[in-house]
Amino acid sequence: MKANKLRILPLGGLGEVGRNMMVYEYGGEILVVDTGLMFPENDMHGVDYIIPDISYLIERRNKVRGIIITHGHEDHTGAIKHVLAEVNAPVYATPLTRGLLEVKLGKQGGLDRANLHTVQAGDTVQVGPFKVEFFHVCHSIPDGVGLGITTPVGLIVHQSDYKFDHTPVDNWPSDYAKLAEFSQRGVLALLADSTNAERPGWTPSERVIDGAFDTVFRETEGRIILASFASLISRMQQVAAATERYGRKLAFVGTSMQDNMKMARKLGYLDIDDKLIVSIEQALTMPDKDVVIMCTGSQGEPTSIMGRLSTGTNRLFDIKPGDTVVLSSHPIPGNEENVYRTINRLFQRGASVIHEALAPVHVSGHASQEEMKLLIHLTRPKFVIPIHGELRHLHQHARLARQVGIPSENIAIIENGQSLELDADSMKLGEKVATSFVFVEGSSVGEVDEDVMAEREVLARDGIVLVNLTLDRFSGSLRRDPQISSRGFLLSRDSDSLLVEARKRVQNLLNGSVNGNLAKDVEKELGNLFYSETHRRPIVYVTVARE
Amino acid sequence: MKANKLRILPLGGLGEVGRNMMVYEYGGEILVVDTGLMFPENDMHGVDYIIPDISYLIERRNKVRGIIITHGHEDHTGAIKHVLAEVNAPVYATPLTRGLLEVKLGKQGGLDRANLHTVQAGDTVQVGPFKVEFFHVCHSIPDGVGLGITTPVGLIVHQSDYKFDHTPVDNWPSDYAKLAEFSQRGVLALLADSTNAERPGWTPSERVIDGAFDTVFRETEGRIILASFASLISRMQQVAAATERYGRKLAFVGTSMQDNMKMARKLGYLDIDDKLIVSIEQALTMPDKDVVIMCTGSQGEPTSIMGRLSTGTNRLFDIKPGDTVVLSSHPIPGNEENVYRTINRLFQRGASVIHEALAPVHVSGHASQEEMKLLIHLTRPKFVIPIHGELRHLHQHARLARQVGIPSENIAIIENGQSLELDADSMKLGEKVATSFVFVEGSSVGEVDEDVMAEREVLARDGIVLVNLTLDRFSGSLRRDPQISSRGFLLSRDSDSLLVEARKRVQNLLNGSVNGNLAKDVEKELGNLFYSETHRRPIVYVTVARE
Repeated sequence: MKANKLRILPLGGLGEVGRNMMVYEYGGEILVVDTGLMFPENDMHGVDYIIPDISYLIERRNKVRGIIITHGHEDHTGAIKHVLAEVNAPVYATPLTRGLLEVKLGKQGGLDRANLHTVQAGDTVQVGPFKVEFFHVCHSIPDGVGLGITTPVGLIVHQSDYKFDHTPVDNWPSDYAKLAEFSQRGVLALLADSTNAERPGWTPSERVIDGAFDTVFRETEGRIILASFASLISRMQQVAAATERYGRKLAFVGTSMQDNMKMARKLGYLDIDDKLIVSIEQALTMPDKDVVIMCTGSQGEPTSIMGRLSTGTNRLFDIKPGDTVVLSSHPIPGNEENVYRTINRLFQRGASVIHEALAPVHVSGHASQEEMKLLIHLTRPKFVIPIHGELRHLHQHARLARQVGIPSENIAIIENGQSLELDADSMKLGEKVATSFVFVEGSSVGEVDEDVMAEREVLARDGIVLVNLTLDRFSGSLRRDPQISSRGFLLSRDSDSLLVEARKRVQNLLNGSVNGNLAKDVEKELGNLFYSETHRRPIVYVTVARE
Repeated sequence: MKANKLRILPLGGLGEVGRNMMVYEYGGEILVVDTGLMFPENDMHGVDYIIPDISYLIERRNKVRGIIITHGHEDHTGAIKHVLAEVNAPVYATPLTRGLLEVKLGKQGGLDRANLHTVQAGDTVQVGPFKVEFFHVCHSIPDGVGLGITTPVGLIVHQSDYKFDHTPVDNWPSDYAKLAEFSQRGVLALLADSTNAERPGWTPSERVIDGAFDTVFRETEGRIILASFASLISRMQQVAAATERYGRKLAFVGTSMQDNMKMARKLGYLDIDDKLIVSIEQALTMPDKDVVIMCTGSQGEPTSIMGRLSTGTNRLFDIKPGDTVVLSSHPIPGNEENVYRTINRLFQRGASVIHEALAPVHVSGHASQEEMKLLIHLTRPKFVIPIHGELRHLHQHARLARQVGIPSENIAIIENGQSLELDADSMKLGEKVATSFVFVEGSSVGEVDEDVMAEREVLARDGIVLVNLTLDRFSGSLRRDPQISSRGFLLSRDSDSLLVEARKRVQNLLNGSVNGNLAKDVEKELGNLFYSETHRRPIVYVTVARE
């Protein structure tokens, strides 16, 4: 890499480019933006979450001058513990984002070692060769920021998750003036969120939710049970306001929701009167018409409160006929089945369920196509680099950029691990960094690899057959019938003709000439038998003992 | 059950009530409507498809007077082979539906035994005590019918999948007059499709797709590769028309699509000039600008043509930069990840991909809320029974029915296996029939049960650890180190501290007093060790040999 070039490198999980982590590097010095996690896809069996492979940073750990977190959502914060364990750099975040990081590090460990710095929108911080100006953006969590990064090659605008909301819940609109000012100074490159690039028009304001809540609260006589994300602070504010308007009381349920609520109230991001809040125990003694319960589980996670309510396995309380459940969220892609299953089960228990499809009880936190065009016009960048989306979103974002006059050759679509090199005049593909993502399961980080995952896929699809042979140590003949059992494969009954045939095949093999590797021969023979009879390919595992 | 009551019983897979099969029974005589399959959910590992449990029919096989198939989609036809294998009743279907059944039974076997009868919309057939009038409905496949079933207790309108399309591709609108005539006669109960009950307004006409195709064909210079379902005959017609308008030639790829295309042309449901059609081999020699390829795989199935194109593993041809891929379909719920992964991979290979989110290249075949209200007003039923949807759809359909004046007590929401009993004045819940669904995998039908599925879930999540102990047959001590290996669990390296610890634990157990069941003790001990160290619970399988 040439010394006078700016390197831009997206890292992170799966197909979402740069969502979890972006690296800016100049003269060997590094600025990291965001440290997020991804949730596993449906065929990533057993994985709890996925974090970026940060080998690139670890190899350069003494050159990382700072880490900036743009806002408090998991896909931008969730890997902070793992990153700080390897890279000891100062972390910059706005007060609410810092508060959420502290709650997280406090629970997971690592808070004592973390070197956290509070910044405010409007502040400027020098991080190595990068002068970073923080500016306010609207998103589905308060206190989000975008970054104006003055580098030796020019000004970069890093626009993480955002929307242009003229009437946000916290009454703090996006900083249009700052964006326009950047454009006056001249923007070399704009990197911006592509999540909703397939969505025409303008994303509705968070404020429309108030109207939907009004309808629900006005028409409901029983309890109202609202589920959302624990980090959706503005939604808590809106629920509290509706609760107050309709003379009810509000109970927050679930540790993460309570922790975040307390922290946000303390920092002044959540304005809820003490008198409005009751404990869940109190709420359960009150008349139904006075009760609002807010909890997590809007993604239908089986172990969440809403998941347990839907299966009747919640500890403190149950769904009862007359309850109205509001899912104030959007299913994360891949979670649709879980969410709809949960909704069906809640109906089965007598609740009425209101979700996004039926009323605007949720709106997206991401800019739609017209907002994305506005951002380009506001900043007038030379280069556009779509980030924060799958390839299909980046391509659509690029199309929008071309529509508003950015020449094709000035738009770069890159994948995670593919670096770009910029100077004041040019943008070129740079080195491709070997990068992947890291599976986290329970206490294991990165030990589960693609091979283990492939084994799980086979186990899940076709199961395993275990064959235990006991041979006479002298004659080599079977001392007793082969013991054959299975897990996840259909060999249950002892009388099963397939089992009988399998035993016969083993016997025949032993009668023939065994070329020294009996276990392998048996595996192959039974594998063929099972495939021809069932069209499945279970793993066949053979042990041989000699008595 | 009282002899003078009509029993209505939805059977079928998973949560979709009555989608796959409805049973009407009077005086012990049975009419079956539809014999469909369901696709497995993401956590149903290894399952190919799911069919209704038809024990109820098998127990009454001599009383089944007829089977009616409303239209040719898999979720209404896919279990025909399995049903006819058990129940030898005449099957009634319109010409195109019959043609699709013949293609299917011809491939799967069973065509020779099937007793198929062609009916036309407008025909009346007496099936046991049921006088069935077939009337034309619009849907995303031609030749669909609804049923007016005159029973001894009154007239039932069975409205399977439908939409009200004023400009369908085959120019054959819904039979409004028949519905109005039913209403004159007096409709006891309306059973109707609830699929889109959460969708406001009116579903757009199939005709809007023509406009979207025009835009794509006009703007594209390279090849156009269109994916859809093999049964979407009307889409083939639209693609052929666009191909002709823009002076290209059309190649159909894939056996099922070709079989259906030939059959539909022969029966006159598809009007395509011979000169328009080329083989794929011919197409590959033509200039890109002259080529349209139509294939299956719009759901991103890895083994489909589109799936293979996205991974570069197709046999006859590959995606190349400049290709435009059109996915003319909607992701089946649960398939979203597969579909989006495929789209991303196609972009990666240089194709431009156009799908439902970007342009109206697909429209729903199901009625939206205003159409559902219209159907109720057209038929003016005494009772409304929402069918063809998950519980959430049925509840929403019920809400729409209440909005147009059907009293709550005249609306029944039932699940699969829950019967209703009707006479001329009343509708009551009847017997609950023990019913479930049946997993089909390869050549196995119903052998994989919930237990095997649960084992697969554990195997998929946490894997399996195999422990092989060889003891001295006299002393009971270990003859050699325990052999421990794993599949889908993280015990790869022999030096692994967890493996070392596991061996030690086994040794300690043997040094202590073994209460007779060594294998069980080892399973328990290692299970605890693995959980405390990794928070996973792999299956532990122990074999003990004595030498």
